[in-house]
Amino acid sequence: MTAQSATIVEVGPRDGFQMEKAFIPTDLKVRVIDLLSEAGLRSIEVTSFVSPKVIPQMADAAEVLGRITRRPGTTCKALVPNLKGAERALEAKADVLELVIVASESYNRRNVGMTVDQSIEGCAQIANAVGAKSIPLEVVIGTSFGCPIEGPVPETQVERIARAVAALGISRLSLADSIGAGNPAQVSRLVTRIKNALPGMPLSLHLHNTRGLGLANALAGFQAGVDTFDAGLGGLGGCPIFPGATGNVATEDMVNLFEEMGVSTGVNLDKVREASRLMQQFLDRPLPSYILRVGTASELYAKAALANVS
Amino acid sequence: MTAQSATIVEVGPRDGFQMEKAFIPTDLKVRVIDLLSEAGLRSIEVTSFVSPKVIPQMADAAEVLGRITRRPGTTCKALVPNLKGAERALEAKADVLELVIVASESYNRRNVGMTVDQSIEGCAQIANAVGAKSIPLEVVIGTSFGCPIEGPVPETQVERIARAVAALGISRLSLADSIGAGNPAQVSRLVTRIKNALPGMPLSLHLHNTRGLGLANALAGFQAGVDTFDAGLGGLGGCPIFPGATGNVATEDMVNLFEEMGVSTGVNLDKVREASRLMQQFLDRPLPSYILRVGTASELYAKAALANVS
Repeated sequence: MTAQSATIVEVGPRDGFQMEKAFIPTDLKVRVIDLLSEAGLRSIEVTSFVSPKVIPQMADAAEVLGRITRRPGTTCKALVPNLKGAERALEAKADVLELVIVASESYNRRNVGMTVDQSIEGCAQIANAVGAKSIPLEVVIGTSFGCPIEGPVPETQVERIARAVAALGISRLSLADSIGAGNPAQVSRLVTRIKNALPGMPLSLHLHNTRGLGLANALAGFQAGVDTFDAGLGGLGGCPIFPGATGNVATEDMVNLFEEMGVSTGVNLDKVREASRLMQQFLDRPLPSYILRVGTASELYAKAALANVS
Repeated sequence: MTAQSATIVEVGPRDGFQMEKAFIPTDLKVRVIDLLSEAGLRSIEVTSFVSPKVIPQMADAAEVLGRITRRPGTTCKALVPNLKGAERALEAKADVLELVIVASESYNRRNVGMTVDQSIEGCAQIANAVGAKSIPLEVVIGTSFGCPIEGPVPETQVERIARAVAALGISRLSLADSIGAGNPAQVSRLVTRIKNALPGMPLSLHLHNTRGLGLANALAGFQAGVDTFDAGLGGLGGCPIFPGATGNVATEDMVNLFEEMGVSTGVNLDKVREASRLMQQFLDRPLPSYILRVGTASELYAKAALANVS
């Protein structure tokens, strides 16, 4: 165990909401995001500036960014697919821009219609644009742990992309297990490799829980020196291209993993659950978060203590 | 990572079935257990010899043990609450007997109406009876990682019970997280403590997935040197006393964790899933196993490779 604290990045409002067919009213998006920042989540992926034709759910991206309460110490990230999206995000005053490059050629083509090298070139254009305005740019390497079209993804390919975008002056790199295919040994190996290749680069993990390994993979990443983990309120989320690939690790469950180990996250679980319950109500289905359903062990013990006293 | 192989102990037919209100026909129990032993699970908790008045689901314990196919290399375990149960289990030709002693006094009293010391005394009686017949006796220490009545359980109490039963010549000790309250740091700490206290004692972990931490806790236990883990087909299981404490780690998901890390379990997932699907059909509800629902990454890749070829 290397760090005494961990940062949980809330990605539900982007990675989660975009999977929902029913349009989530802008008012509800704003209310949920405000609850998440009140909860102490210091980094929130608020929206994405993609074409509303491709993902109608994100049509109100600028309005959401304009209406949420900006709290000092909370960073509002926006995902952008290209330079045009980056310009819209800058105009809407996103604090940080995020670009996804998918490590497997087939999936990247399917995602943005470009080769990986074209995506790296696009990253250079965005880096120039945001660099001039001193806005941080983060890069997410999708399918870092496996691709549903190509199968296993060579670690050399992930490292090649990581080195190329690092040279463009990005401020953070995220390794994404887009389809929940990774395992703890693999996470440990790839994290160690990328940390050795790029010693100073801040590193995040984006782990889907498709096969129930999200928290075990987070543990392995933490042991290998990562201290920043994406998660989605209630366990919302997935992948718009492959319907089987559902579910971010739930924010509540990720917070519980670390807090119960004595690793501080600074997140107030009650506020996160309030946001998740609003979403459950709107979506009219139970969300997969365990802690949303049963609470933490510490909460159980507090109740037990009260019962023993009375 | 210490071992190159791991043993998965199937506990669904006992810990899972006992949670079900509808009586599972003996024929179905036998069919499911036979599939599990065909799957290569080398150790199966087949039933328990408790009072049929307390747990009617286990009323056919002797019949189940008598009718299942005994495979060389597969151990059939039976849980016993006391000497009388042990005698019934011996008569029914169980290969191994298992006794639960709950580490917290309040929960042990609620479970078997005895103090912990009375349970240790009962263990001595059973050890004498089975020792005379050279049948292995295993002890499970319940609530090793926390109790719903008393809260945190002192590690000194778990160690005290472990030392006491080890002195009675038992053949294996299992630390049970009966309510899924443990976390990886705690698992690592307690396993290390018990291994140091009892260096030669074979050690298992029984981890419930109540808070989604089952696999992360198994990983931590494996890293600390445990190579034997309980799991229940489909994720069946729970605790008869506390309804919130549901769910063993699914056998499919536990096998997947290890196999994907390159740690051999010798388990054929197809056979396990066949058994889980029979149970889903009978219970008429989806079981919580992730791998039952979406398959493993290796299976996905095999399909991807076929699609690319065709």
